[in-house]
Amino acid sequence: MTLLGELYEREPPIPPEEYVRIGYSELKAFVTSIFRAVGLSSEDAEVVSDVLVAADLMGISSHGVQRVRRYVDGILRCCVNPRPNIRVVRDRGAVALVDADGGLGHLAGVRAMEIALRKTEVYGVSLVLVRNSQHYGIAGYYALKAAERGYIGISSTNSEPLVAYVNTVGRTLGTNPIAVAIPRREPPPILFDAATAVVPVGKIELYSKLGRKVPEGWVIGEDGSVLAGDAVGVLEEIRKGRAAILPLGGLGEEFGGHKGSGLALVVDIICGVLSGAAWGVHVGYTVGTKPANVGHAFSAIDVESFIPREEFYERLEKYVLEIKSLRKHPSADRVWLPGEKAWLTSQTRLKIGIPIHKRVCRELNEIASDVGLGERLPCGT
Amino acid sequence: MTLLGELYEREPPIPPEEYVRIGYSELKAFVTSIFRAVGLSSEDAEVVSDVLVAADLMGISSHGVQRVRRYVDGILRCCVNPRPNIRVVRDRGAVALVDADGGLGHLAGVRAMEIALRKTEVYGVSLVLVRNSQHYGIAGYYALKAAERGYIGISSTNSEPLVAYVNTVGRTLGTNPIAVAIPRREPPPILFDAATAVVPVGKIELYSKLGRKVPEGWVIGEDGSVLAGDAVGVLEEIRKGRAAILPLGGLGEEFGGHKGSGLALVVDIICGVLSGAAWGVHVGYTVGTKPANVGHAFSAIDVESFIPREEFYERLEKYVLEIKSLRKHPSADRVWLPGEKAWLTSQTRLKIGIPIHKRVCRELNEIASDVGLGERLPCGT
Repeated sequence: MTLLGELYEREPPIPPEEYVRIGYSELKAFVTSIFRAVGLSSEDAEVVSDVLVAADLMGISSHGVQRVRRYVDGILRCCVNPRPNIRVVRDRGAVALVDADGGLGHLAGVRAMEIALRKTEVYGVSLVLVRNSQHYGIAGYYALKAAERGYIGISSTNSEPLVAYVNTVGRTLGTNPIAVAIPRREPPPILFDAATAVVPVGKIELYSKLGRKVPEGWVIGEDGSVLAGDAVGVLEEIRKGRAAILPLGGLGEEFGGHKGSGLALVVDIICGVLSGAAWGVHVGYTVGTKPANVGHAFSAIDVESFIPREEFYERLEKYVLEIKSLRKHPSADRVWLPGEKAWLTSQTRLKIGIPIHKRVCRELNEIASDVGLGERLPCGT
Repeated sequence: MTLLGELYEREPPIPPEEYVRIGYSELKAFVTSIFRAVGLSSEDAEVVSDVLVAADLMGISSHGVQRVRRYVDGILRCCVNPRPNIRVVRDRGAVALVDADGGLGHLAGVRAMEIALRKTEVYGVSLVLVRNSQHYGIAGYYALKAAERGYIGISSTNSEPLVAYVNTVGRTLGTNPIAVAIPRREPPPILFDAATAVVPVGKIELYSKLGRKVPEGWVIGEDGSVLAGDAVGVLEEIRKGRAAILPLGGLGEEFGGHKGSGLALVVDIICGVLSGAAWGVHVGYTVGTKPANVGHAFSAIDVESFIPREEFYERLEKYVLEIKSLRKHPSADRVWLPGEKAWLTSQTRLKIGIPIHKRVCRELNEIASDVGLGERLPCGT
């Protein structure tokens, strides 16, 4: 089944009158200008912009340009370093440790994955950890960098506490995502990119905008009671720090809440404890009173160290075809591969532009004005 | 909080009169004799027995000696090779590919993890894949081998199809577990060991024995309807191939079913597609008409390549203490670390013996008799 001709969007602009569509190149150049204006080098500004706009392209707007304000504030107030001296502090065989010097995670992320790719070329596999970093955007971006080179890429990070540890209340763990990208003969690559929480907070934001109800099993309050229903109210409790997102697997152990929170813990121990970064409740927010000290992990696996490339692709295409031929559940619209929705959305948006909420669009213009830029996005009326 | 003095068991023998307690050494020697009698070398028989009895020690009886029949039948009928020539078929830097020659997965697993540990000593990280193998028991066993050496260990495998891919019906994926073991200054190590399915089939077996009801969200029928209630009936549907276990995250995407099945798919692509083993519906059962061609993956991470060991331990103990100090959910009995229940159960059972269901005990005696052994376990009346 090919969907190349379709204009699919995983997160369509609803209601349409609240959005404008902005061309990929225009949006990227605009965001690049902003980061240059707040002190990043031209090259670094382009890297950060590329990661953010990629998220919008893929329909993950929660991690897209709506976060520019947060990163800019972190630079202008505290404690993001706009000109980090990103250094390899340990290097041994197939592993390395990178110190991000308090710069944006996107910069250290791209650099660390490049190191991982070079090491994988020599050793077949690699692991590069990063400490003293900041939020790095979508985990999948870095994993895809490996897949573009024909490797299997893995990327993970810890993040500020939003998620309850199993059998407890309150926020202890980040949404600590895991991304794995697997190259195919033709795009799209398989891209698994998932928070180890039951949902990302961005999904609850989306529900609140759409007037949808939060189901029981996503969020718990301080007293351990399930928070559900009106998404606006649930979101407010989360924003006020009075509620936590549940781990993948939900409340308690009956449906595997110990698995989701166990995965999040393992991610945190590797990205945070082992790297020398912060962990758990100590991981900071981008705008704060001290450096966030986020930690990341990057790995790449050389396919050809195990099997001839063409044989791998042939086997994988057989598997993909088998999955696509499975009998659909009566309640499902389609059988999807991991990353397929994101890729189709990207293709659509490269053609017809990226829907940006007018509020976000105006906010970007305000930021541009604040930092002394003359250019403006066309945000409509 | 230390529980060293308590006799904790995660899976207590219920009802007690259906069980006998057998000493660890006695059980292990008995099972070793059986595998020697069906053609394994003394050394190999001891390895297989050690993995199986370890599962019973840890309270994972679904993967313990109750599976001896299955493995023995695979050897005597088809298609387990009792004297495999386990070979490294590819070896490059930090990676290797092992061909298990159709032998029991425990043998290839222990061998492959040993190779991974040697490579990690040199390169800081490693990845060893295995093809042409059989069921390897509990994933955590191999990860723990790395933790015993002071490394972080990772182990994963594919397995025969029992789990539905998200938005589809029928069995496509194995329960494809992921295990990660993290060493601590003092035992127990942290041991995350979880199927990527919402539950292992062993849990439904346990519920059927205890007369408990299967909750909605574990199992779906061929028509996509939720199967719940009477566990005996649900188990029968699974055994007849008319029902599938749901992935972690459950039915559809609302609670993350795409995450659980995505993780299972990624495990299968690395363990199966990349290694040259079978994948998805092609992975065989231990007793069949052709070799199961199971695939595994093993990795180890050298802590000291990233951080001085004592610093790692100190940071980790702080994190552990923070988790243990979290406010308990009103419905929870205790805040557990991954692997803590298994470790406490092991300590208990090393002292007072391993509870073996009398039916399983008699079955072991029958197998011993069948293969010409004189010794018998004391199975009570």
